[in-house]
Amino acid sequence: MINLAVIGYGYWGPNLIRNLTETAGACVRYCCDTNASRLAEAAVRYPFLKTTQSYQEVLNDPSIDAVVISTPVRTHYEIAKKALEGGKNVLVEKPLTTSVADAEKLVALAEKHNLTFMVDHTFIYTGAVRKIKEIVTSGDVGELYFIDSVRINLGLVQSDVNVLWDLAPHDIAIVEHLVRETPVSVCANGACHVGNGLENVAYLTVYYDSGLIAHFHNNWLSPVKIRSMLFGGSKKTIHYDDMQASDKVKIYDRGVEVTPQENSHDLRVSYRLGDMWAPKLDTTEALQHMATEFVQCIQDGKCPLSDGRSGLNVVRILEASEMSIKHRGKEIKL
Amino acid sequence: MINLAVIGYGYWGPNLIRNLTETAGACVRYCCDTNASRLAEAAVRYPFLKTTQSYQEVLNDPSIDAVVISTPVRTHYEIAKKALEGGKNVLVEKPLTTSVADAEKLVALAEKHNLTFMVDHTFIYTGAVRKIKEIVTSGDVGELYFIDSVRINLGLVQSDVNVLWDLAPHDIAIVEHLVRETPVSVCANGACHVGNGLENVAYLTVYYDSGLIAHFHNNWLSPVKIRSMLFGGSKKTIHYDDMQASDKVKIYDRGVEVTPQENSHDLRVSYRLGDMWAPKLDTTEALQHMATEFVQCIQDGKCPLSDGRSGLNVVRILEASEMSIKHRGKEIKL
Amino acid sequence: MINLAVIGYGYWGPNLIRNLTETAGACVRYCCDTNASRLAEAAVRYPFLKTTQSYQEVLNDPSIDAVVISTPVRTHYEIAKKALEGGKNVLVEKPLTTSVADAEKLVALAEKHNLTFMVDHTFIYTGAVRKIKEIVTSGDVGELYFIDSVRINLGLVQSDVNVLWDLAPHDIAIVEHLVRETPVSVCANGACHVGNGLENVAYLTVYYDSGLIAHFHNNWLSPVKIRSMLFGGSKKTIHYDDMQASDKVKIYDRGVEVTPQENSHDLRVSYRLGDMWAPKLDTTEALQHMATEFVQCIQDGKCPLSDGRSGLNVVRILEASEMSIKHRGKEIKL
Amino acid sequence: MINLAVIGYGYWGPNLIRNLTETAGACVRYCCDTNASRLAEAAVRYPFLKTTQSYQEVLNDPSIDAVVISTPVRTHYEIAKKALEGGKNVLVEKPLTTSVADAEKLVALAEKHNLTFMVDHTFIYTGAVRKIKEIVTSGDVGELYFIDSVRINLGLVQSDVNVLWDLAPHDIAIVEHLVRETPVSVCANGACHVGNGLENVAYLTVYYDSGLIAHFHNNWLSPVKIRSMLFGGSKKTIHYDDMQASDKVKIYDRGVEVTPQENSHDLRVSYRLGDMWAPKLDTTEALQHMATEFVQCIQDGKCPLSDGRSGLNVVRILEASEMSIKHRGKEIKL
Repeated sequence: MINLAVIGYGYWGPNLIRNLTETAGACVRYCCDTNASRLAEAAVRYPFLKTTQSYQEVLNDPSIDAVVISTPVRTHYEIAKKALEGGKNVLVEKPLTTSVADAEKLVALAEKHNLTFMVDHTFIYTGAVRKIKEIVTSGDVGELYFIDSVRINLGLVQSDVNVLWDLAPHDIAIVEHLVRETPVSVCANGACHVGNGLENVAYLTVYYDSGLIAHFHNNWLSPVKIRSMLFGGSKKTIHYDDMQASDKVKIYDRGVEVTPQENSHDLRVSYRLGDMWAPKLDTTEALQHMATEFVQCIQDGKCPLSDGRSGLNVVRILEASEMSIKHRGKEIKL
Repeated sequence: MINLAVIGYGYWGPNLIRNLTETAGACVRYCCDTNASRLAEAAVRYPFLKTTQSYQEVLNDPSIDAVVISTPVRTHYEIAKKALEGGKNVLVEKPLTTSVADAEKLVALAEKHNLTFMVDHTFIYTGAVRKIKEIVTSGDVGELYFIDSVRINLGLVQSDVNVLWDLAPHDIAIVEHLVRETPVSVCANGACHVGNGLENVAYLTVYYDSGLIAHFHNNWLSPVKIRSMLFGGSKKTIHYDDMQASDKVKIYDRGVEVTPQENSHDLRVSYRLGDMWAPKLDTTEALQHMATEFVQCIQDGKCPLSDGRSGLNVVRILEASEMSIKHRGKEIKL
Repeated sequence: MINLAVIGYGYWGPNLIRNLTETAGACVRYCCDTNASRLAEAAVRYPFLKTTQSYQEVLNDPSIDAVVISTPVRTHYEIAKKALEGGKNVLVEKPLTTSVADAEKLVALAEKHNLTFMVDHTFIYTGAVRKIKEIVTSGDVGELYFIDSVRINLGLVQSDVNVLWDLAPHDIAIVEHLVRETPVSVCANGACHVGNGLENVAYLTVYYDSGLIAHFHNNWLSPVKIRSMLFGGSKKTIHYDDMQASDKVKIYDRGVEVTPQENSHDLRVSYRLGDMWAPKLDTTEALQHMATEFVQCIQDGKCPLSDGRSGLNVVRILEASEMSIKHRGKEIKL
Repeated sequence: MINLAVIGYGYWGPNLIRNLTETAGACVRYCCDTNASRLAEAAVRYPFLKTTQSYQEVLNDPSIDAVVISTPVRTHYEIAKKALEGGKNVLVEKPLTTSVADAEKLVALAEKHNLTFMVDHTFIYTGAVRKIKEIVTSGDVGELYFIDSVRINLGLVQSDVNVLWDLAPHDIAIVEHLVRETPVSVCANGACHVGNGLENVAYLTVYYDSGLIAHFHNNWLSPVKIRSMLFGGSKKTIHYDDMQASDKVKIYDRGVEVTPQENSHDLRVSYRLGDMWAPKLDTTEALQHMATEFVQCIQDGKCPLSDGRSGLNVVRILEASEMSIKHRGKEIKL
């Protein structure tokens, strides 16, 4: 039995406790939050939990095997560092940290202490992304040419991070999970209209040596809600539309075929039209898969799908995007 | 009666002749094309037209008041230049020229000779864009914050221009028409996957001093067809979805409200939710309005909605985007 | 304070308790169910509730002011009858009873004892239907011509009632709520394909003397999920699409205009095209409004929006539809 | 070479001439219309056509092999009768006639004279319906359970026929083409709101002995435009949504599975969820296939896909629906 403590009972904490409670092999022992009224709510809903306002108390308890950190991002590093140093396995909410340097230190610490270190990239555990991973890995889409991601809606404007740090981690983590190639540079553009100096609309381009280009569009001010990703390949294209009630993933056997012309530097380009196919998706809650992965990785010592390194990779792109956006799209090497 | 000649009877030429023929005050006299079989087709459909393979013959005819140039882009400059020098009023297909320098020369030439000089930015004559213009001008959307344009589909990969030169002129022309502010710089990113070295997917950001940011996404390889523009303002947001069979333009009275907090540098941000409204749109063919505008401007000496300067403004952004894209998103001042 | 007991803790019971618990002036005291394991679940979630397998025990408790009956339909009549006879105010799940005769007896009983008697027609408490009611009542849509309702999906095939008794009460209750005219007759058609002799697809037409026609389509076997209602009037038409994530209600200022022709029995018919408008809707959970209505009606002695008579009216149409469907669409007078 | 005459140059006539002109083996010789100005338009567009206001003149010309009748429905019978008696092959617009008796006489006449007799059920020649036919015939959908068709929009209110005679022929013809079983009875309901006594909204149910039920909803007053057909089978369900720009036909491998329970008359019902698939469709204009079918059937003596008997079958349902609608849904045996 893995004994767990959840640190941070804000927006996401209740979902984490609910899912961890239902995970085989796991037992949630503590809920920790600096906010007393939130703690009281947790106590009502989960009478079996110990509650505390001090995460240090949790880390001092030798019966606790692992901590789940869902506090504000700026506190992730310190709590995770102390937890890893204290020999606890650690799951952290996305984004992992506010800097690459911090993320690298945590990854090194976890490796040194041989602990499970994982980041909650929830979306890679959805039925949709798992199916897309399966299709991309099978080679059916061919070589990946472009990925285009749009995640916009009327969102809660954050006071400490821009819209990329808030929304893009979901989509960057999906791309990090699907693409086995290392990105080489990023360019980002954006603008701020709500007075706090942080971009509320932003565009991020990620370049790869193979020619793959990934683009992310995030916006907190759009009354039209879009959550869409296109994965364009040499053979097929996948459309993932998370706003659809069903058939969220569609595979199009359609594209453009290019044939070099003899005795000419011209190309003959023709359409290739074919079927569209929407596979059945597992509809289990993604967080359930995520929780199970965490617990099993602790038990078996295997590396999580969304390990610390994937969290670091996401932060690397976010940090570079922030630098690029300050210099109006300047290319930042990764 | 304005006597007209249409030079170039390719994809768009037939639409131009059909609409000009139905325009009050206009009489199409010539169809000119270097391709004899295309000319023969024109002769069958419009038996009253003179046909010729030499545009010089058209320019030499003193009875011709105006020429309409729908030849490949690289030939626009030379034909338009000779036509203006010959005292003909000129309508040119989009994009106006392949360089800012050429566009500037043509604009100057037209002004010097006091001739009507217009570019066929068809979309600004649609019922949708005319309605959007009316709403934006009325002040109802408030200050413009962002414009986001997506025009992607399985498109005909061009052999001499990238996807921005091919598709973005439509959307840039709409923005040029709606926004009274001069853009200050552009950043563009893109990639080529079909072997001719020209980008088949591209992203373009245009910056304005007021904080407005406009973004354009064009792609020739997407099996999902999208033609969508968002106009986000401080009061309202307009969504123009050209793929809808009806209700293409929707105005959302929804947004985010930001209130500075006393004794704090924090902001209080709240949602404002309200009605959505889809105004009735004029469904007259846009090209009919465009043709009428050209003929009336010649008759009355007034400046066309899509005059040479607007054509130049579009080319200015395209040329800068090409330079930016070659330097991976480097900001290019306009 | 109104003391309540919820009888029946199946699919809907938990939603009722959750909402009644949050209703000002109400206090849920009991949860009653014949199934012991369901009772145990209720006890865990709501430790303050008394639980019992005997609804008679509830009725015998003089401190209980009102009971909420969410048991299988065939048991509604007996429980409601005893509750009313015992002087309890009563809220019953839809459909009210399995026969008009039973419903009439309950209505009479409630009136005799001067008790609040209400049926849970949840949909009439949605923001969507309340807005539609407001618009229809204002006269904006003019005279109602037709109502077309479709509610189809892969549904749980019931073993004791056909698809009309299962799904149509929602839509019939909406129509009952919106239309002030009494229907005169019904015709229904349907078919059974799953072996239990009960229709899994059915079509119901309801006639009114004014010329209004209402039609209901219900289907348990459709992989395409539709929940749509059209309200066509002489001036405007309302479309209520419950599957939309936003803008569920759209008002179309479009129609057909008919002008009698002089010296002719022909009609001149022309289109009238206008704007479309999607009003902001209250998104409060409908059940919260319903619970508040019940409690307030008990307190104030006013008649509920969905009183016993409206429940009776729905059952009257359902009973007639069942007779009609057995005789292949034979018109049944109401 | 088959020499043709087109009689009736109204709304549909130009489409017929355009497609017949492009059909191998066919030569359109005549255009006939009682309206002189329409004839003049035809003469301008097709200078090679003889024009006449007298269809008798056409029938008297021995060089004419076949006539295509696209006149108002009430005139079909007389013209077709004389044409068949005159030894001409005949193609008639839908609906074939205004009565079953007339349709039967024409079918008999054509058989007697051994002439090709065909009705223009255009929709069965679309890529969508041809694909659906292929799938249904293959057995992939299993036994057909229900067909649900909706064709509604703001339509041209007709002065001599109700909405079923105007719109339903399209959908009834599709069903007639796809279903090899003979329908046994119909029930229809409807209402008239525009003053001419003819239903502008109508619902038609068609019963089959196998348990298959087909339902048609037509409405001239709906600002929401729907053209949708569901084909529900024991194994799969097909959705044909003609308003989609692409992927009009979707096959859902989803349904309900019913297993009888041992020692019980209850049924165990469970969902079966699977993939969705949208096959590539031929996008050739349906009328081109229809025209080719007519010409080839004349040449080869084979029976057309949409022969006189299929036209008669459609009229049989329409005539019965009219009788049923007058008696408020009374079942009419076929």
